[in-house]
Amino acid sequence: MAELLKGAPVTAALNEKLQGEVAELGKLGVLPGLAILRVGEREDDLAYERGALKRCNTIGIAVKQVVLPADVAQDELLKVVNDLNEDKSVHGVLIFQPLPKHLDAEAVRAALKPEKDVDGITDGSMAGVFSGRPIGYPPCTAKACMEILDFYGIDLTGKRVTVIGRSLVIGKPVAMMLLQKNATVTMCHTKTADLPGECAKAEVLVVAAGKAGVVNASYVREGQVVIDVGINVDNDGKLCGDVDFASVEPIVKAITPVPAGVGTVTTSVLAQHVIEAARRSLKARNS
Amino acid sequence: MAELLKGAPVTAALNEKLQGEVAELGKLGVLPGLAILRVGEREDDLAYERGALKRCNTIGIAVKQVVLPADVAQDELLKVVNDLNEDKSVHGVLIFQPLPKHLDAEAVRAALKPEKDVDGITDGSMAGVFSGRPIGYPPCTAKACMEILDFYGIDLTGKRVTVIGRSLVIGKPVAMMLLQKNATVTMCHTKTADLPGECAKAEVLVVAAGKAGVVNASYVREGQVVIDVGINVDNDGKLCGDVDFASVEPIVKAITPVPAGVGTVTTSVLAQHVIEAARRSLKARNS
Repeated sequence: MAELLKGAPVTAALNEKLQGEVAELGKLGVLPGLAILRVGEREDDLAYERGALKRCNTIGIAVKQVVLPADVAQDELLKVVNDLNEDKSVHGVLIFQPLPKHLDAEAVRAALKPEKDVDGITDGSMAGVFSGRPIGYPPCTAKACMEILDFYGIDLTGKRVTVIGRSLVIGKPVAMMLLQKNATVTMCHTKTADLPGECAKAEVLVVAAGKAGVVNASYVREGQVVIDVGINVDNDGKLCGDVDFASVEPIVKAITPVPAGVGTVTTSVLAQHVIEAARRSLKARNS
Repeated sequence: MAELLKGAPVTAALNEKLQGEVAELGKLGVLPGLAILRVGEREDDLAYERGALKRCNTIGIAVKQVVLPADVAQDELLKVVNDLNEDKSVHGVLIFQPLPKHLDAEAVRAALKPEKDVDGITDGSMAGVFSGRPIGYPPCTAKACMEILDFYGIDLTGKRVTVIGRSLVIGKPVAMMLLQKNATVTMCHTKTADLPGECAKAEVLVVAAGKAGVVNASYVREGQVVIDVGINVDNDGKLCGDVDFASVEPIVKAITPVPAGVGTVTTSVLAQHVIEAARRSLKARNS
């Protein structure tokens, strides 16, 4: 039986810490503010938004919801982004992606100020996560993996970590953050010749392939820690990860469940980034 | 006996191709221009500058040398960078690093327009190499490794590549470019627990540790391709790489020598980036 690396205790610990930070900022007259910018009414955006609202409410972050119709014009959307850039009560902006196809998502990303980019979509945030400098923020889900590893005391220094997936949202940024923590990181993907071999050698395995069942029992071994970032729907209509949990869990040392694993921590990381953005803006104002 | 992956033929092929590209741009009324900005008179800057001048001259790129005294004021240097940003005859700017200690190198890097950043020092270039989009340029030395692999027909798809070193100048950008070429990339560094093991499993080994003798015979095996990015001076005052060439060369399939390997290709890549910058600026003007 593997240890279950559940998200709930990670979130609980983060929330408590963040509530303390909000109180500290409050003494300095700062109320951290998040703007959620949504175009249209996609069901998964709405579900994430509800979760983010609840989380921010618990922690004490003000939330401004900005909803635009699915057929909004590019200019109108850019104007809203610019207004949020200028709004001093807004420290972080979450823009739901993907945007409807008639919009130029690249131009929208470019319009957002990196210092308010709490979900790592701007070039500034990418340069930050690549270089390890405090420019912008990494994507929340990638950071959530790091928070889970940190909370459960999994030391990464000198460890072999295999990352499956090379997206800008998870694979690449999580690889950079693992490297920052002194792990020896191997980046795998659909073209990797021997994926089972690359998985077997790992001490920690981060699976963000975007496809159910990519990792099964034959890929893993005793003693491994598995972080499953996938969210898929199986044949029975149930949520499942990228890892075949039923066959992998009995073998490895520890594994995140899906649901109730990485996904649970994401909105707490979003809150963490908003608070950090508020803190940085205060520092910038005072310097 | 390993195949010697010398830089000279790579450079010769690149130069010929680039001369053709300069001729094409010439027909469109564009003369690619590089500005070299040097502060002070460091000997290795001067050596590189001589090489770059010669290379640009051969290929047909105009070079503007801007030399500032070692005690130049920050404001003065920033003004020069801004002037080069605005100078339409300058498509690429090379700023020698490190700058003298009294200067704020971060602010200087931030001042340079990414579209003129032909040696990958700006945040824009870093976002570009991280995301694989055409923003700015990767550092020339990192790109030189890729040109050598390409010239010698070393296919990277699905191959295991181990990179030693995680600097922003070589390790990280070369890892991103290898990933872009569909390699399975392992990033190693000083905290890696089993460096010999990580080297042994590689089909291609890129060594950018910044230290002589980091890789010796016990780290390598038959069939491997070794790219040695190091430039060090040995006890006899001779140039040497990060790889112990004498012991490694008899074992592996192919290896770049030092000198006459990666370093030889760097200024051709610089020229390549200047020409690409001229082409992009023409495209931007026409669109």
